[in-house]
Amino acid sequence: MLIGRFTHHPESEDTDQAAWGLVEGDTIVALEGSPFEKVEPTKEKFPLSMVTLLAPVRPSKVVAIGWNYMGHIQELGNPVPSEPLLFLIAPSAVVGPGAPIILPPESQRVDFEGELAIVMGQKCRRVKRDRASEVIFGYTGLNDVTARDLQRKDGQFSRAKSFDTFCPTGPWIQTELDAAAVRVTTHVNGELRQDDNTCTMLFDPYYLVEYVSAAMTLNAGDIIATGTPSGVGPLAPGDEVTVTVEGIGALTNAVMQEKL
Amino acid sequence: MLIGRFTHHPESEDTDQAAWGLVEGDTIVALEGSPFEKVEPTKEKFPLSMVTLLAPVRPSKVVAIGWNYMGHIQELGNPVPSEPLLFLIAPSAVVGPGAPIILPPESQRVDFEGELAIVMGQKCRRVKRDRASEVIFGYTGLNDVTARDLQRKDGQFSRAKSFDTFCPTGPWIQTELDAAAVRVTTHVNGELRQDDNTCTMLFDPYYLVEYVSAAMTLNAGDIIATGTPSGVGPLAPGDEVTVTVEGIGALTNAVMQEKL
Repeated sequence: MLIGRFTHHPESEDTDQAAWGLVEGDTIVALEGSPFEKVEPTKEKFPLSMVTLLAPVRPSKVVAIGWNYMGHIQELGNPVPSEPLLFLIAPSAVVGPGAPIILPPESQRVDFEGELAIVMGQKCRRVKRDRASEVIFGYTGLNDVTARDLQRKDGQFSRAKSFDTFCPTGPWIQTELDAAAVRVTTHVNGELRQDDNTCTMLFDPYYLVEYVSAAMTLNAGDIIATGTPSGVGPLAPGDEVTVTVEGIGALTNAVMQEKL
Repeated sequence: MLIGRFTHHPESEDTDQAAWGLVEGDTIVALEGSPFEKVEPTKEKFPLSMVTLLAPVRPSKVVAIGWNYMGHIQELGNPVPSEPLLFLIAPSAVVGPGAPIILPPESQRVDFEGELAIVMGQKCRRVKRDRASEVIFGYTGLNDVTARDLQRKDGQFSRAKSFDTFCPTGPWIQTELDAAAVRVTTHVNGELRQDDNTCTMLFDPYYLVEYVSAAMTLNAGDIIATGTPSGVGPLAPGDEVTVTVEGIGALTNAVMQEKL
């Protein structure tokens, strides 16, 4: 199943107005309540072209993983980690497909980072790798947008990755993905910039669930962003960036400069 | 005003059962709805000894500040920062007064860090320092419990500070504190271990609101933990740790070892 969140009143993107929906071809069927409880389709059905897709979840936290693809470790000159490196992105940074990525004046270098993201299906703690599939709801795409200059300056990653709009997520959740070997690409203005496969991850999604949940309780809708491959690069106002995860779909966001 | 959150059915600490309340002497008066909207006392009143206090807010994010007191910078041998250093703590780590701090087997060295915490009163972004008081709801105490060995190993602070129970917060919010010069102390088993005054902060609370909100939207109930003074040290099972902020009150938590 492909599960998205949407509003069909483009003028009221307030989250209270939003509904979850089941994507079927070029339509979306509204769901009753939360898909984490039960996927219950209603009779309301809309053409995808008539709705505004939102981020498919409103996470209570976004856990992200650094240095999980060898190519990215090499391009930034970092040592190969023996364990996953965790950091947190503020949930306020999450936006949906189509929402603009807004470049703040504080940074002179904002990079795209296309990623596969795990969406948790239930509250859990200390889940072993061989049970991880039971607590994963599905997978989506994520762009871990990063103010590279501020990341280097701070040392801590959270500010550089938590500016409003810096965490585009979507376009929807694929609940039946085998994430072991799917292609992850990022295009900027149609040009291929990142191209790798999740089979080259140092730490696979099931192990990430074990490792993260050893530290903290994960809630339904929480996100684990699994790290970015090589090829990261800067975004400029007017760019259009698309993260595509094979078997899920394309997450496209335009880039604009913040005006103060 | 002193605003806390509580349940008077100790067997059902589920947050849905919780209410906000106005602390008056040794009683708590239940409030109607959220104090961020309007502080509206009901006729329900309980002796404080008969309720279970919870963390006074359920933040959508906990932003914390590193290296904000000269004494702590010196004791850990860090350079003096020219700007606040931000990191994030998972909201799932937040517990209330009286809840146990649970030491996980992953760490051999868990430290207390007593702090003054800002509680935001409304959704806001890019608030200038001279307007910060308008968006601050009040202040509370916070213990930024840290797995020091994992903090050093990871480099990134978030995992070391986001284990479940690692963010005791409370005992309540003081809405009328002048935070410019209040004493912050931490006692372990009755012994004074941290003792400093917010007047020695490098970056004061109003500036922190400006700096953090320049990056990210803050929501009502969000927390900014303002950093810890010198004197941090380890906790052991059986310890009782109390963070006291002058004009607010005492946040006491027992320490126990996690049993797997």
